[in-house]
Amino acid sequence: MATKRRGNQTVVFENGVHISGFGSIGAVSEQQGPLGEYLDIRMENAEYGEDSYEKAEMKMFRNVALHAIEKFGYSTKDIDFLIGGDLLNQIVSAGYSARELEIPFLGIFGACSTMCEALLLGAMLVDGGFADNVVCATSSHFGTAERQFRFPLELGTPKPPSGQITATAAGATVLSGIKNPFHLAVKCATVGRVIDFGITDPNNMGAAMAPAAAETIVTHFEETGRRPDYYDKIITGDLGSFGTHMMFDLISECGFDLGERHEDCGKMIYRGLPNINCGASGCGCMGSSLNGYFMKSLIKGDYTRLLFVATGALMSPTTSLQGESIPSIAHAVAIEKEEE
Amino acid sequence: MATKRRGNQTVVFENGVHISGFGSIGAVSEQQGPLGEYLDIRMENAEYGEDSYEKAEMKMFRNVALHAIEKFGYSTKDIDFLIGGDLLNQIVSAGYSARELEIPFLGIFGACSTMCEALLLGAMLVDGGFADNVVCATSSHFGTAERQFRFPLELGTPKPPSGQITATAAGATVLSGIKNPFHLAVKCATVGRVIDFGITDPNNMGAAMAPAAAETIVTHFEETGRRPDYYDKIITGDLGSFGTHMMFDLISECGFDLGERHEDCGKMIYRGLPNINCGASGCGCMGSSLNGYFMKSLIKGDYTRLLFVATGALMSPTTSLQGESIPSIAHAVAIEKEEE
Repeated sequence: MATKRRGNQTVVFENGVHISGFGSIGAVSEQQGPLGEYLDIRMENAEYGEDSYEKAEMKMFRNVALHAIEKFGYSTKDIDFLIGGDLLNQIVSAGYSARELEIPFLGIFGACSTMCEALLLGAMLVDGGFADNVVCATSSHFGTAERQFRFPLELGTPKPPSGQITATAAGATVLSGIKNPFHLAVKCATVGRVIDFGITDPNNMGAAMAPAAAETIVTHFEETGRRPDYYDKIITGDLGSFGTHMMFDLISECGFDLGERHEDCGKMIYRGLPNINCGASGCGCMGSSLNGYFMKSLIKGDYTRLLFVATGALMSPTTSLQGESIPSIAHAVAIEKEEE
Repeated sequence: MATKRRGNQTVVFENGVHISGFGSIGAVSEQQGPLGEYLDIRMENAEYGEDSYEKAEMKMFRNVALHAIEKFGYSTKDIDFLIGGDLLNQIVSAGYSARELEIPFLGIFGACSTMCEALLLGAMLVDGGFADNVVCATSSHFGTAERQFRFPLELGTPKPPSGQITATAAGATVLSGIKNPFHLAVKCATVGRVIDFGITDPNNMGAAMAPAAAETIVTHFEETGRRPDYYDKIITGDLGSFGTHMMFDLISECGFDLGERHEDCGKMIYRGLPNINCGASGCGCMGSSLNGYFMKSLIKGDYTRLLFVATGALMSPTTSLQGESIPSIAHAVAIEKEEE
């Protein structure tokens, strides 16, 4: 077996993959929720000074990547690769940002699992000796996602209770081969398989993604030999409240109980706000929470070991119209605070 | 600098990344062209036994990946990661194939540069010790691409002379850490930056992609210290005839002359057929040519060193409608026949 693998899906980073920068951005609702105070960049509104929501999302992606890069005084020239993607067709938020940032670009698509896919690929490139510094980034925007995946915004279509609201948010992380004063490291990751339990309702993404989250989390425990209590928190991307219930049921059938250790970014972002349905979704959900609240809490010492599990629904409007069910994926990334 | 880098964009694979399987598939026009006889799977028609072109493309992706995996008697259980993508929104051809293949999945998007992006990522994962075997795959289909990016097929919209025809084709490569009787290895790769010369005409993709191809090829020579005569052939993905002319002009300004060493898969696939406009395009263009004609020619000994440069246009119909120009990218991958 390859030297840096454990089991079929888990890879370990033994040379040290250190976090040397991070950034988060959110719009107004995202600022009003409990994670809002941890955002680095606070948008005045969803337009963000641009004449389309798509251009606003590109600017969010670009600015959050720059914020992460400049945190330690790096410039874009110090970054070997930009690894990222977003929800838009042909991942244009990432692609057009890569044009402005001028960093060699590896575009990825994992729907809302993109933040963790970017981190685990970036960590493999750094640990493998192919890069000194990579920036991993993702974004989502309610205005661009709603009109691409669901209905024109002008219709004001109400959402059913199981519907989630795409977060207007983005996040970026810089991974490096050398240590730095943050003392944060990516230690291992579990790459997900595509799971499909036959859910066909695009207004119930949480239910479609819950089986993927459960499988990746259980696989991670089995392949690392860890139990849930190894981690201070196990954080899913955006299952929302229905999806979280489903995931708990599926995981408990496998003999694991996450209990109070579990958090879901989709449930956290709008907690306490009115009309939030089942919670938030979108790549920026995990992107902004991981690079905002959680990264800052790790540095403060509130947490020592976190497992991030970003989940993505891999359908398109075309596959839904053709009667296909919704396949999903989840990738897990373990981030730990190291001894100073 | 990271140990396996040369310059800013080039990575080298010193531990050995060996090709242990490959497969190619094409529809009727692709079989009629000069590369047709080298295809492993020959489709009877573009429907491929399915009731939509999208489902046909998913089946092409799945079958070509399986063909590559089974070439040496591997099964899907022997493969650590599936790395792939396609042109469709949310890369559904790759995502739904990953559901059937049940291999841990890393979805990527690089438009028509996807074959080389998958190969260079896969090579880094194998060389870095994170995987024993990975399968890299991509697909495209005239029927799915035409109606997603341009016009409903029923309109029969004619193409201008600079237009290219999306190939109904796919290809897959298996990369492994151990040697095998093919004696083919991925030796190094140059990761592209996103380049934009301000082209706004989505019917002239060759012109949009030529600057990216030129930049990546020149960077590859500069960072490796090689000259064009190091390679038997330098093969671009799908610039077509107009784009190829542009690329030659741009490269000659930098002091390099590719001359007779250059081939373009987009020009090759339909060579000699009627009504081919500027040639072929699509992820399957490089995917099927690399894993069909070129791989078989390497094994026969017709070539020893090939540089594959897949080019991708990173626009979407939405960005075109919003007046944006077309940013492009090109990734280069060097494949060599080793001593037996």
